[in-house]
Amino acid sequence: MPETTTETTPATSPGPRRIYVAGSRPDLRVPMREIGLSPTRLAGGGEEPNESLRVYDTSGPWGDPEFHRDVTRGLPVLRANWIRERGDVEEVAGREVRPEDDGYLSEAHQAKARREAGDPGVFDRSGRAVLRARPGRRVTQLAYARAGVVTPEMEFIAIRENLGRAEAAAAGRDALGFQHPGESFGAAIPREITPEFVREEVARGRAIIPANINHPELEPMIIGRNFLVKINTNIGNSAVASSVEEEVEKMRWSVKWGGDTLMDLSTGRDIHRTREWILRNCPVPVGTVPIYQALEKVGGRPEELTWEIFRDTLVEQAEQGVDYFTLHAGVLLRFIPLTARRRTGIVSRGGSILAKWCLSHHRENFLYENWDELCDLLSAYDISISIGDGLRPGSLADANDEAQFGELKTQGELVTRAWERGVQVMCEGPGHVPMHLIRENMQKQLDWCHEAPFYTLGPLTTDIAPGYDHITSAIGAAMIGWYGTAMLCYVTPKEHLGLPDRDDVREGVIAYKIAAHAADLAKGHPGAQRRDNALSKARFEFRWEDQFNLALDPERAREYHDQTLPQAAAKEAHFCSMCGPKFCSMKITEDVRRYAEEHGYGEAEAIEAGLREKAEAYREEQLTPRG
Amino acid sequence: MPETTTETTPATSPGPRRIYVAGSRPDLRVPMREIGLSPTRLAGGGEEPNESLRVYDTSGPWGDPEFHRDVTRGLPVLRANWIRERGDVEEVAGREVRPEDDGYLSEAHQAKARREAGDPGVFDRSGRAVLRARPGRRVTQLAYARAGVVTPEMEFIAIRENLGRAEAAAAGRDALGFQHPGESFGAAIPREITPEFVREEVARGRAIIPANINHPELEPMIIGRNFLVKINTNIGNSAVASSVEEEVEKMRWSVKWGGDTLMDLSTGRDIHRTREWILRNCPVPVGTVPIYQALEKVGGRPEELTWEIFRDTLVEQAEQGVDYFTLHAGVLLRFIPLTARRRTGIVSRGGSILAKWCLSHHRENFLYENWDELCDLLSAYDISISIGDGLRPGSLADANDEAQFGELKTQGELVTRAWERGVQVMCEGPGHVPMHLIRENMQKQLDWCHEAPFYTLGPLTTDIAPGYDHITSAIGAAMIGWYGTAMLCYVTPKEHLGLPDRDDVREGVIAYKIAAHAADLAKGHPGAQRRDNALSKARFEFRWEDQFNLALDPERAREYHDQTLPQAAAKEAHFCSMCGPKFCSMKITEDVRRYAEEHGYGEAEAIEAGLREKAEAYREEQLTPRG
Repeated sequence: MPETTTETTPATSPGPRRIYVAGSRPDLRVPMREIGLSPTRLAGGGEEPNESLRVYDTSGPWGDPEFHRDVTRGLPVLRANWIRERGDVEEVAGREVRPEDDGYLSEAHQAKARREAGDPGVFDRSGRAVLRARPGRRVTQLAYARAGVVTPEMEFIAIRENLGRAEAAAAGRDALGFQHPGESFGAAIPREITPEFVREEVARGRAIIPANINHPELEPMIIGRNFLVKINTNIGNSAVASSVEEEVEKMRWSVKWGGDTLMDLSTGRDIHRTREWILRNCPVPVGTVPIYQALEKVGGRPEELTWEIFRDTLVEQAEQGVDYFTLHAGVLLRFIPLTARRRTGIVSRGGSILAKWCLSHHRENFLYENWDELCDLLSAYDISISIGDGLRPGSLADANDEAQFGELKTQGELVTRAWERGVQVMCEGPGHVPMHLIRENMQKQLDWCHEAPFYTLGPLTTDIAPGYDHITSAIGAAMIGWYGTAMLCYVTPKEHLGLPDRDDVREGVIAYKIAAHAADLAKGHPGAQRRDNALSKARFEFRWEDQFNLALDPERAREYHDQTLPQAAAKEAHFCSMCGPKFCSMKITEDVRRYAEEHGYGEAEAIEAGLREKAEAYREEQLTPRG
Repeated sequence: MPETTTETTPATSPGPRRIYVAGSRPDLRVPMREIGLSPTRLAGGGEEPNESLRVYDTSGPWGDPEFHRDVTRGLPVLRANWIRERGDVEEVAGREVRPEDDGYLSEAHQAKARREAGDPGVFDRSGRAVLRARPGRRVTQLAYARAGVVTPEMEFIAIRENLGRAEAAAAGRDALGFQHPGESFGAAIPREITPEFVREEVARGRAIIPANINHPELEPMIIGRNFLVKINTNIGNSAVASSVEEEVEKMRWSVKWGGDTLMDLSTGRDIHRTREWILRNCPVPVGTVPIYQALEKVGGRPEELTWEIFRDTLVEQAEQGVDYFTLHAGVLLRFIPLTARRRTGIVSRGGSILAKWCLSHHRENFLYENWDELCDLLSAYDISISIGDGLRPGSLADANDEAQFGELKTQGELVTRAWERGVQVMCEGPGHVPMHLIRENMQKQLDWCHEAPFYTLGPLTTDIAPGYDHITSAIGAAMIGWYGTAMLCYVTPKEHLGLPDRDDVREGVIAYKIAAHAADLAKGHPGAQRRDNALSKARFEFRWEDQFNLALDPERAREYHDQTLPQAAAKEAHFCSMCGPKFCSMKITEDVRRYAEEHGYGEAEAIEAGLREKAEAYREEQLTPRG
């Protein structure tokens, strides 16, 4: 009994390719992945082409087959001219890099440790100047937006966010455009994203464009409720494990799978040097928690931290090009005793460092006290602030408590003060929160923080699944994204257990791409459903290669399919392993549809009128292959 | 600089053990897993014990270390006396098993094929009679419940659902009892589940106890909105792949990880024999889609199906002990043309088989036409009905459409008719549904189907992640479970791509245990948060082994931890690999808490009054280990 594989689709699908969509100037080219699709075989014979689909691409030059792929040379400096032509920055000598920046007591100590570690060396910065705003200037996208200037960054973002759907619609080829109306909970996403819309959203603080003038390699992206929901990925070495090369490799995997921003949370040695390698090779905004490095500089003793040491660390990282800083300025002295009654106290590293500092000195948080100076400093580099949630709940039991919401309200005050100084700002939130308490977080953040973008960790919707917290938290992330969170901080399967490796980064990114996309769909983001429609059509038509290529993780989809049906022919077969060749529900539906089409049915009445007489003939057609 | 690992918890944790909670009669013993925990080290020295936690255990005898573990002998017949002592069943000769039942034309053909396959043989049924209701009797839990009888099954379930929390509370050791009030969307879950409550819920049809009198090995469980949310797992061979042994092994993995029910969806050869092996060794209810086997008996040609062949298959499976049947009786002739306009037509196998039959004959669905006779038949074995959703959406685009909701409304009619014949019944739903359209499904099901339990596949909240559909669907499953769905049908990573293997079963089960538990938490199911509280406390106190043992998947949690910190000592260490030994946020919080406790703080005012003077002393304590 031979298997029925006679009906085939073309063996090869055009597949994905890197394209660039041109903007208004020659140096404004927006990368996208264009997924070419094979044609649909028509029931009556012949073929109908399927238009290719453009998808958002975070991989930067690493996703361009013509890129040199040499980490020692770094990425092209895409934004270098854009930054300089504004005429508001100057080259500065910059702060001298010291052995302490990498956790060494002396240069000799540093040299010895690096020799022993089989060192990858220091990134060669020659020819790369350090930039800073000219005196009295604020070089932030917020300042430009308020001044009515549409920057190349804003135009880049507008093209990127549209995903070519405007052109597709204009060309009359929007067969994939069907979409359910969403429930946006007050978000106001326009049908088409224009550069002017980007400017308006940035000007009113409802979106940010993290883009340090010293990170010209960055491809601009935006974080805001009226744009695609973004995801952040965390990497970073620690005192216990991992190396520079591993971190750079994790960064590349993060952007390959779709990470929109990257936080380097390194805590051990070689923090400065690791960060340099990452920044020079990273096409997405890089964030850090500067207090981690500052703490290293005082030997791990929070009570010895000072504003001066912290400020110096900000300058150090600003000059390297870090695009956003997490600053736990909302951990106020008066909130700390509230955490003593909690089940799991303070679980944020930054929060606990500052709590300890506050308790030790019985003084108010020095970030809060120096907020205005801090904002002035950051406005000279266009570093965005992510106001940390040092008191986020570390267990369901602590969700939505007084400590957490006290800090959130303080974040609102800090947002206003940052805006007064022209600094772009977002707020960090959640942690562990059961489903029914998630929405309150979003509502309060909108109310108290003046619509500054919300950026949340998960939330994890249960505490009992270590090893699977990418899933416990993808549930909460999808929901809070739907309610209005602009960026979701991923969680990997290793959360609570260990440091993520490259594979964990992939698992975390895909889980969060799912959450972010599910949120876009539920919000009714225009065009969000196009990819779902294209993939479902490919699936229904047994265009296996197209289905793989349209998937968030084509490699995994192909691998899983091949585990059950490894033969190449199976990828052209009109059946799948779940039902086998003899019987297949999709095959039968094809028959039903073809039959209905051939006979002009499409309405319940029609079938009542005409089907009875056709039934016998249909039975004789025996469209199902006989085994 | 030595690493600071001097503060340790006891090296060994008591860990999990199998216990049995006694009911009102000697043969009523409810298995649970009791997780012993190590004590909390107090800040001031000394220890405080942590009470063990009892968790729901689906593993049956396979989870009892004293069980013989011999699949050829099968499980103990736990319910045999309960069934017979009711005096309403009789032994019957039973239908003769024929080669066609396993897809063979003759006994010679069968023998040859089995020899070639290295056959595991046929399960030895000697000593196991086939039971059926005495003439005129309905032996269903629904009939008993309506008659006011609390069966041993109901008592078993009451004990099981309470998880020992009543006893814990009575003994005054309910330190883990803190729980957020939930949002139940109209569910009415009592503080304590009594046998009488179980009876009431079954009597009004709001819950079912799938328990065929020919499956005495089954440990009773309940499916209903006012009980713990359950998960179903699907296994099954196909014409393309897998074997009898593999299916039995997948069944064991399903119950090991927490599957509450199991559907055997086999479609190829040896369906009867595979099912027998599974049933005799399966401690949870087993469901099937009988039309799959009926289709095999007519050579895979839907148009050749007859009510007689189908009815014969029902009897065959009823006598083996199948506990619930999925019956696609709501796929009415008039709904079929509606699917022709869909993006992905009919994706349910059962639905498409019946659609093809209806179109071929231009007759109404024979399941619908013979529903009353069918219900009478099933009431003689206490087989529950799961009314299939043959027209569920196979893509987001088709969600909540006319075809889907037409069938759902028909389900409501079928529920009423099943109840009239004393048959327990639930309704199947979702498929692919974006988040914002999920709740409408639950609301309509409640409205139209008279609160019969809802049993949904996922829903998948996006179409674009083949390879990760356990995640796309865990998001939707958690939400619909929260809204009121009683049982969630799992989805494995292989969905749309291939047949799940043992590891995929594990991934699917854990993802769905997460979803079901997240739903219980959000509903405010009394006691649901106890396990989260216990695990979070263990995590906060660095009781690593306790944390692993309390996890949904202890093996995975332990494995991931060991990848970063493999030394045995690390499991006793007061730090984790994320921050390393020198700095740890939880460590600092311990310091904050100890400090606040020692100094009597707990209120914001107190700290304002007293902290200033203590600050200097605290700084000198230097509780953070110096590196």
